[in-house]
Amino acid sequence: MTLPLLESHPEHLGGPDPAAIANCVGECLACASACTVCADACLSERDPASMVHCIRTDLDCADLCTATARVLSRRSGTKTVLDALLRACEQACRACADECGRHAAQHRHCALCEEACRSCSDACQQLRDHLVGAGE
Amino acid sequence: MTLPLLESHPEHLGGPDPAAIANCVGECLACASACTVCADACLSERDPASMVHCIRTDLDCADLCTATARVLSRRSGTKTVLDALLRACEQACRACADECGRHAAQHRHCALCEEACRSCSDACQQLRDHLVGAGE
Amino acid sequence: MTLPLLESHPEHLGGPDPAAIANCVGECLACASACTVCADACLSERDPASMVHCIRTDLDCADLCTATARVLSRRSGTKTVLDALLRACEQACRACADECGRHAAQHRHCALCEEACRSCSDACQQLRDHLVGAGE
Amino acid sequence: MTLPLLESHPEHLGGPDPAAIANCVGECLACASACTVCADACLSERDPASMVHCIRTDLDCADLCTATARVLSRRSGTKTVLDALLRACEQACRACADECGRHAAQHRHCALCEEACRSCSDACQQLRDHLVGAGE
Repeated sequence: MTLPLLESHPEHLGGPDPAAIANCVGECLACASACTVCADACLSERDPASMVHCIRTDLDCADLCTATARVLSRRSGTKTVLDALLRACEQACRACADECGRHAAQHRHCALCEEACRSCSDACQQLRDHLVGAGE
Repeated sequence: MTLPLLESHPEHLGGPDPAAIANCVGECLACASACTVCADACLSERDPASMVHCIRTDLDCADLCTATARVLSRRSGTKTVLDALLRACEQACRACADECGRHAAQHRHCALCEEACRSCSDACQQLRDHLVGAGE
Repeated sequence: MTLPLLESHPEHLGGPDPAAIANCVGECLACASACTVCADACLSERDPASMVHCIRTDLDCADLCTATARVLSRRSGTKTVLDALLRACEQACRACADECGRHAAQHRHCALCEEACRSCSDACQQLRDHLVGAGE
Repeated sequence: MTLPLLESHPEHLGGPDPAAIANCVGECLACASACTVCADACLSERDPASMVHCIRTDLDCADLCTATARVLSRRSGTKTVLDALLRACEQACRACADECGRHAAQHRHCALCEEACRSCSDACQQLRDHLVGAGE
């Protein structure tokens, strides 16, 4: 639903590609949701002490993805903010994917979360290329 | 992706139906996203003064839906909190749907947002019935 | 700083008391911050398995308090939403205070967090009385 | 309250200075709150069309500051994420301060919000120097 909404925005013409924005917003929302569930699932594992770092990267990633989805939904046009935020989100997704990857064989929620994080990390990188490539 | 994640949660058995939770989480995320874009689109309309109340209900609804999606993703089990939160989210969705409905003929983003809000409002009500009906 | 800002709002006259709103916003922000640190501190304790429920109530409470502070900062005027949201926030604060109270003798962060939660719970209740007492 | 909480964290020794973290968290929370009120106050001004860009920078800044306060409250230790996030938050605060500065003579909420944003921007920059200066 994000794409038709962005396409109905009065200022959608002449700006960044709505499909590229909508794709990244969708990835951020899916990743935030995956990380929030994964953090809670980690807490229920038999040895939560071994999952502490994973829980932290999950929570950080969820917060970054939520903020990124919101900022991307606005036509604020501050490229320096978007550039730094997409970098931060990409890094948080990568850190979480790497950590979840260490537990993916044992815990299916970590395997699924790793997948969501890698996909979102890629989407952030692509959107950053698209926005920076388009010039100020 | 929320449903397979919830199904991989170690405590998913014996609790509320993961499909019912996943459905409501998905509706909340979609509604939060719709409201965030709609608020920004309203700002770009020719007469933003006439959209002020709509922007406010959009922003409130986005905040409530985001918080609800997060809390629903945890196995905290505090029924009084879930009950009140789902009520609040349902009311915020309804208030926003009613306000967007007033502009739906003029602005496509309001028509789409109204739809997302009604759908999320219904999902919150159904989940509340499910959770309360299941007993403490 | 919240009070002078609310007092500089063009519509602050004739509405709810800015000091009552500012007080509750301040409590919500302080409580959200306390809960976020407490959740992370619980993860670092020697036996995180015993802190799992505390971490969950911390995270829920932080999410509710953050959303409540935001919604209270707007003049959306939807009393049914505010009433349900303040109830939900009050309940989440109480649930977290009760759980942190169980660990307050062992962990200073839980003692401090319990205090922040009780104080915020009271502020939510008082504001709800004020807003509902003031009529629609 | 953030400082005593951070000092009660089991891992607070050997990490970044809790006072530096607590200061930046406090600035982020105050700035997020100022921006949320300022956005709503802008909507109530006689000519909201002239405040559209200000409302957008307010909302972006509030989202970034909220996420930054949360991530800073955890001992996740991912320096690349913190570095990029503090940069993004600093840029969002600066963009909002510059925009609010344009309206500071007319609207007291913009003057107060500009002040909160400049102060938070400085705090983010200082903390980034502190964290990066401390090595990996």
